[in-house]
Amino acid sequence: MSLKGNALIGQSGGPTIVINASLVGAVQEAQKTDSIDRFFGGIHGLDGVLNEKFIDLFREDDNVIDALKTTPSAALGSSRLKPKEADLERVLQVFKAHNIRYFFYIGGNDSQLTCHKISELAAGSDWEMRVMGIPKTIDNDLPITDTCPGFGSAARYAAAAVQYASKDAEAFGNGEVIEIMGRHAGWMTGAAQVGRLDDYMAPHLVYLPEVAVDIDDIANDAKAAFKKHGYVVVAVSEGLELTKSAEDEAKLDEFGHARLGGVAKALAGMLEEKVGVRFRHDTLGNLQRCFAASVSETDFNQAYAVGQQAVKLAVEGETGYMITIDRESDEPYAWHLGMTELMNVADKTKYVPRDWVNEAGNGVTEEFIRYAKPLIQGREVALPTGIPAFPRLQKHFIEPKLPEYVRTK
Amino acid sequence: MSLKGNALIGQSGGPTIVINASLVGAVQEAQKTDSIDRFFGGIHGLDGVLNEKFIDLFREDDNVIDALKTTPSAALGSSRLKPKEADLERVLQVFKAHNIRYFFYIGGNDSQLTCHKISELAAGSDWEMRVMGIPKTIDNDLPITDTCPGFGSAARYAAAAVQYASKDAEAFGNGEVIEIMGRHAGWMTGAAQVGRLDDYMAPHLVYLPEVAVDIDDIANDAKAAFKKHGYVVVAVSEGLELTKSAEDEAKLDEFGHARLGGVAKALAGMLEEKVGVRFRHDTLGNLQRCFAASVSETDFNQAYAVGQQAVKLAVEGETGYMITIDRESDEPYAWHLGMTELMNVADKTKYVPRDWVNEAGNGVTEEFIRYAKPLIQGREVALPTGIPAFPRLQKHFIEPKLPEYVRTK
Repeated sequence: MSLKGNALIGQSGGPTIVINASLVGAVQEAQKTDSIDRFFGGIHGLDGVLNEKFIDLFREDDNVIDALKTTPSAALGSSRLKPKEADLERVLQVFKAHNIRYFFYIGGNDSQLTCHKISELAAGSDWEMRVMGIPKTIDNDLPITDTCPGFGSAARYAAAAVQYASKDAEAFGNGEVIEIMGRHAGWMTGAAQVGRLDDYMAPHLVYLPEVAVDIDDIANDAKAAFKKHGYVVVAVSEGLELTKSAEDEAKLDEFGHARLGGVAKALAGMLEEKVGVRFRHDTLGNLQRCFAASVSETDFNQAYAVGQQAVKLAVEGETGYMITIDRESDEPYAWHLGMTELMNVADKTKYVPRDWVNEAGNGVTEEFIRYAKPLIQGREVALPTGIPAFPRLQKHFIEPKLPEYVRTK
Repeated sequence: MSLKGNALIGQSGGPTIVINASLVGAVQEAQKTDSIDRFFGGIHGLDGVLNEKFIDLFREDDNVIDALKTTPSAALGSSRLKPKEADLERVLQVFKAHNIRYFFYIGGNDSQLTCHKISELAAGSDWEMRVMGIPKTIDNDLPITDTCPGFGSAARYAAAAVQYASKDAEAFGNGEVIEIMGRHAGWMTGAAQVGRLDDYMAPHLVYLPEVAVDIDDIANDAKAAFKKHGYVVVAVSEGLELTKSAEDEAKLDEFGHARLGGVAKALAGMLEEKVGVRFRHDTLGNLQRCFAASVSETDFNQAYAVGQQAVKLAVEGETGYMITIDRESDEPYAWHLGMTELMNVADKTKYVPRDWVNEAGNGVTEEFIRYAKPLIQGREVALPTGIPAFPRLQKHFIEPKLPEYVRTK
């Protein structure tokens, strides 16, 4: 069912190493069809949509677009803006003013909710258009899809960092606590265990936000691992939960206070005291989502494919869906693309299942490893010899057509 | 002048990405000569020497030794122990007990002081032996030598991390503060500026420990850069110094207090308030000295070469020197090995010269860039597809020959 007009795409939420691959997948697919006249990129996600800050992606240099594939972070700029009712009305006005018949939004749980709302609004209006969500989040916590583009590369960086840092801890016979992103879901932290090929190797202990643990249990486990190996490495999610019992209250207060300086720092301080050896700490921080040299090949391919597929299906007539990655087998790893209605993923979170964490809550199971391993493999690429430098969009801005928009507070 | 006997080597101070390359350079050179019967590796540096905790490096698998070249951190274990008078006496006893005629110590300023003391002691004794220092420090602050093995790779990691993180800051239109290692010398932080190829690129502001700056100047500079580029990235040494004037006392107190949570965090908090935009922060931490995928080819080659040369020259009759790297030209970059008496480098620090920092104290000069650029180039190697895993020494320990050693407090 043919629908001709312009398209608009936005990037939303935390950037990733491969979110631009999804953008490029969409642009390069759109170049193949007659249905899309102009392809606009919204600057800073929904912000740019509301304020008509679009650039004309078809006017960018083809080589720059292609080079963006391997450029980390969000080339269009990102946003964490959540739309209110009035914002949604404005979005529709903007679509009409610029003859936008296709809208694509690359993002995680919150962003897919925004996408869902826009899709519903369009469906209930007199404006014929197609709206598709493109999955992205290093947290890997979108439901339905087997994995989320962005996760594999971020987890690969974290897993490698744990192995590297473990050699440093081993050299001094120290303890080391490594804080990995994940406030609510422990996919990233669990994946660090993929690098542990035998008992001696790090990370010896792995704590996810899904399973609350007792601080004394952590200390006892760390003590035992230290005694056995002469060093101990603890990988911990930023969202670590400690068990709450009446008698624990004092130490939880203490931990809560120390935590203001970061979970890794707080935990390292407490373990140093309780285990009686020096504990250092590292917080992997923002580099997890932008250290492009650690890209996962699977992740990169999937990110490109979901962007491409969203455009392809929209042009074919689909609307109201998010593209998914469906797993066929663990080893050899095989996958294909699918889709799910936006309402199924909007604002929903996929946690690590309890039975993918061991009973003690200090490591993940073989099933988790089988799941994560194929997602965090690298690719055999030669790194550039210089310090990385990235292509820049020329950003041909389009002329706004509506009165200036002032958001209601 | 031929001297036959055993050799002992130790690694000391903070590990680096290439310190094992120096170890392997020494071992592989020692395998070529008849003068060295057995080559012992001291476990945990001077600690292992005092306690006769040595392994027999010639009994290790040749392939494992070779693979250690690209394994980060210190394979023999490291130590920060500074010897007292009594310790030095013990060292000499250990040398005699194990017929050690060659001693090599890989380390930075403190470690070269230890090496110097041992060299002096041996020279004044009836025990004929040769003592050579092998340079190592990511801080790059050993004098005489043009650069220190370990620096180039660590700086390469930091410079790449700044470029990657800058894309993340750009996507949100944020400020970002990145804390780089260097308590007293700003070589690492200054090198991050090599990645800045034009005005728009990060890092926009670079602060080294050598030049104290006013917090309001930092804020004004950050505000100006933000206004111009829509984002701003500040690279700062962990040893950042603020100017101290009477009227600044209150804010220095405030900063000093905030600093307990880390310089980056403290500075980001203050800039957020003064500039009026969101500032995030990352502390690169221990990964700077162990993220082996960021190895610099120059650094790797030099690290191997200094280890090799120390053994070669000792066998030829030299003693009491540290190997140096002498620069012939910046571009094309050319260097050769030299040496300097241990007393010239023992416990001495080479700071970034004041005229290699710009007048405002917020960036380095072209001269600094010309110096640092060839040192932090990578190599075109294919990265492994899996998460890194490293070879392990079998560690054949030798039999102790002396009574147990108890250090005097």
